[in-house]
Amino acid sequence: MSWNRKHLLDIQSMSADEISTVLDTAAAFKAVGARAIKKVPALRGKTVINLFVEPSTRTRISFELAAQRLTADVINFTAEASSLKKGETLRDTARNLEALNADIIILRHGAAGAPHFLSQFLNASVVNAGDGAHEHPTQALLDAFSIREKYGEVSGKKIAIIGDVLHSRVALSNILCLQKLGAEVMVCGPSTLIPKYIGILGVKIEHDLLKALNWCDVANMLRIQLERQEIKYFPSLREYTMMYGLNKQILNSLDKEITIMHPGPINRGVEITSDVADSKQSIILDQVENGVAIRMAVLYLLANQRK
Amino acid sequence: MSWNRKHLLDIQSMSADEISTVLDTAAAFKAVGARAIKKVPALRGKTVINLFVEPSTRTRISFELAAQRLTADVINFTAEASSLKKGETLRDTARNLEALNADIIILRHGAAGAPHFLSQFLNASVVNAGDGAHEHPTQALLDAFSIREKYGEVSGKKIAIIGDVLHSRVALSNILCLQKLGAEVMVCGPSTLIPKYIGILGVKIEHDLLKALNWCDVANMLRIQLERQEIKYFPSLREYTMMYGLNKQILNSLDKEITIMHPGPINRGVEITSDVADSKQSIILDQVENGVAIRMAVLYLLANQRK
Amino acid sequence: MSWNRKHLLDIQSMSADEISTVLDTAAAFKAVGARAIKKVPALRGKTVINLFVEPSTRTRISFELAAQRLTADVINFTAEASSLKKGETLRDTARNLEALNADIIILRHGAAGAPHFLSQFLNASVVNAGDGAHEHPTQALLDAFSIREKYGEVSGKKIAIIGDVLHSRVALSNILCLQKLGAEVMVCGPSTLIPKYIGILGVKIEHDLLKALNWCDVANMLRIQLERQEIKYFPSLREYTMMYGLNKQILNSLDKEITIMHPGPINRGVEITSDVADSKQSIILDQVENGVAIRMAVLYLLANQRK
Repeated sequence: MSWNRKHLLDIQSMSADEISTVLDTAAAFKAVGARAIKKVPALRGKTVINLFVEPSTRTRISFELAAQRLTADVINFTAEASSLKKGETLRDTARNLEALNADIIILRHGAAGAPHFLSQFLNASVVNAGDGAHEHPTQALLDAFSIREKYGEVSGKKIAIIGDVLHSRVALSNILCLQKLGAEVMVCGPSTLIPKYIGILGVKIEHDLLKALNWCDVANMLRIQLERQEIKYFPSLREYTMMYGLNKQILNSLDKEITIMHPGPINRGVEITSDVADSKQSIILDQVENGVAIRMAVLYLLANQRK
Repeated sequence: MSWNRKHLLDIQSMSADEISTVLDTAAAFKAVGARAIKKVPALRGKTVINLFVEPSTRTRISFELAAQRLTADVINFTAEASSLKKGETLRDTARNLEALNADIIILRHGAAGAPHFLSQFLNASVVNAGDGAHEHPTQALLDAFSIREKYGEVSGKKIAIIGDVLHSRVALSNILCLQKLGAEVMVCGPSTLIPKYIGILGVKIEHDLLKALNWCDVANMLRIQLERQEIKYFPSLREYTMMYGLNKQILNSLDKEITIMHPGPINRGVEITSDVADSKQSIILDQVENGVAIRMAVLYLLANQRK
Repeated sequence: MSWNRKHLLDIQSMSADEISTVLDTAAAFKAVGARAIKKVPALRGKTVINLFVEPSTRTRISFELAAQRLTADVINFTAEASSLKKGETLRDTARNLEALNADIIILRHGAAGAPHFLSQFLNASVVNAGDGAHEHPTQALLDAFSIREKYGEVSGKKIAIIGDVLHSRVALSNILCLQKLGAEVMVCGPSTLIPKYIGILGVKIEHDLLKALNWCDVANMLRIQLERQEIKYFPSLREYTMMYGLNKQILNSLDKEITIMHPGPINRGVEITSDVADSKQSIILDQVENGVAIRMAVLYLLANQRK
């Protein structure tokens, strides 16, 4: 067990030991979620603020529930109709929240590096809940946790990250996290959706879906984030689905039984068909459940460090 | 006391015994609301999620407060800026919420049958907080509770439901609930606002307001939901008010003292004048208070059943 | 210690003794905010409702946190998508909230006098969280608290309120509060932003920034509320800043070290430069922290009075 961090900003700077500490702690908290009384007093009297400058209901709820189950006081601050709209800087907003004696500020922001920026001058702990297309560390941790839960360990496993790697806030954190834990990672998608220099991360690159699936133990199907695409990266949704959509027929054609992950929300019939998403090979809903456990672990470790 | 339901979806499928169980339980919880410390630990460590796909601040707050007073953890999920806007299906949204180890999901939805649909595949308990113009069972239960509180029993009482029966999400649940408890029910309004086949429910139909008022013990004045009416069902608001608006003069002209109810929010001067709404005969604010007690009872009974 | 008020509506009607009671109580609660466990059970089982008809995230969060730290149940009610949009009157909305057995209703409203209006018929306690450009009593109390904390007492101090006095919801409450505690108050700004009859309050009026700064112990720099100004009150922002903006050069040119306050959110580079806002002379973030303590004190005193 090794933890002396004040902030959780990215996977990039974390060691394998630190990652394992989060996963081990999360395992204990997952058991809390299965109890009749899903509540521990670990963060009683602590103040946790969800500062969501970019909306993300799923992530916000997961953090909110994690904080509630730790008995913290939680405040939701969303950018709509807030002082950020009145011309206040992010720095001032954050310092004002800290002045309320906030212990932990969870930041979702559209700009890469925003949580790092805040961490430079805040006494409150900062948790990165997604900064643009940069990192989303708790998502990577919950994905690693889910793979470890399924296979006993992450080391030696082959994970293919498939789809819109370019716009994903999940891909980079996932690659770094899995590699640190000893997994092999491949990215797969049309060349327009694979970042040009991703090779320097030491990942395999594959443009043929079937080859990627035949190689991997776990396929992490990314969401086509149509709302983020100002220019078209592929001719049509239908064509994308024909080339990179995962359906039951393809899944059954493989030599081995691979595991299916997805960070959600799913576009059923686009990157994944319903029968695959709902199949026994899918651990998509486990990922959601594990997300609360991971976030409880992160809040707990950071709060403990502050003592 | 009889209760072995996992969900509260509609009044339609409930027995008189089950309805009475809710009302009796609510009576105990109403006393909690009058205490200096309005809090019982019955749902400590349980997770209740308000999934409001259609906005309804009043109903949401009533459920939220009920859950808080039972010491549950409560999360509000509204459709704005959520994954539902990103193309996620209601089924996936609900299964994701359940994966967070939600115990009870309270659903408000514009489509009739949405809560029944969710209940088919969720392990979490589902509470219908209004599904389109179909049912709104907790409203019917609180109305029945309020009548029982006023008269000692519902059986044998005559209740007239007056106004826009066609668009009401309250009318059907009310009719079913009151009939099951042995009341006689009449609907009254212009023929354009009375559903064509409502007679098969065994209710009296009356188009003359004065006759309805002279018949009933309780008049439940429905709200003119102008925001729901795409085509005009009556020539003008003023004409509606002249024909079906309840004022003090009419009330005083009756032979007996009837009780006035309204599901709120009131359009003062449209379906009801201020002096009637605020008169001693009105139990409109009692209905609001009883709503919290009914919702505490429902959450309590469902949570108990889950053990 | 003197307190027998049911509502906190304005500073106008408060005595110096009552104001001091709030400040003394807040001093005790400020210590709670500095503890590892920021929580006292004083309002356990009480229901506090934030009724924010006009949005104000900062004030809402400060009250929400104050209520949470007192262990109250808190409900947020904002006007968007609420029954207020369905034509319900403020009176009915408030009476409905009270019928939920609310103990304290915190009202933010665009119309002057709205909290006073509610207080006339509600059994719940009403707290004014800002009514138009009229009063914002908890802001004035936290400002007085911050000055007392800095100087040991308010009496005899000279406070200059500088900038857009005309549109400020802070100015009137501040003037009244500071005068009651024995301070001298000056207002300073262009004549277009100083209310015509403000002289009757017994404040000095000054149009020259440098003279005001040389006179005062504390400069309270008001926010230029551009979003409230339908007509232009000064030729340009740049000109305003040249005439009334406070920068480090001006600050250093003064004979003594004055204290800088600002109700927030700051327009950096408009009414105040960054080096001034972040200087040692600034107590802007102390004001934010003290805001929670003042609001805890107000909620506590009102709840105690209700027993």
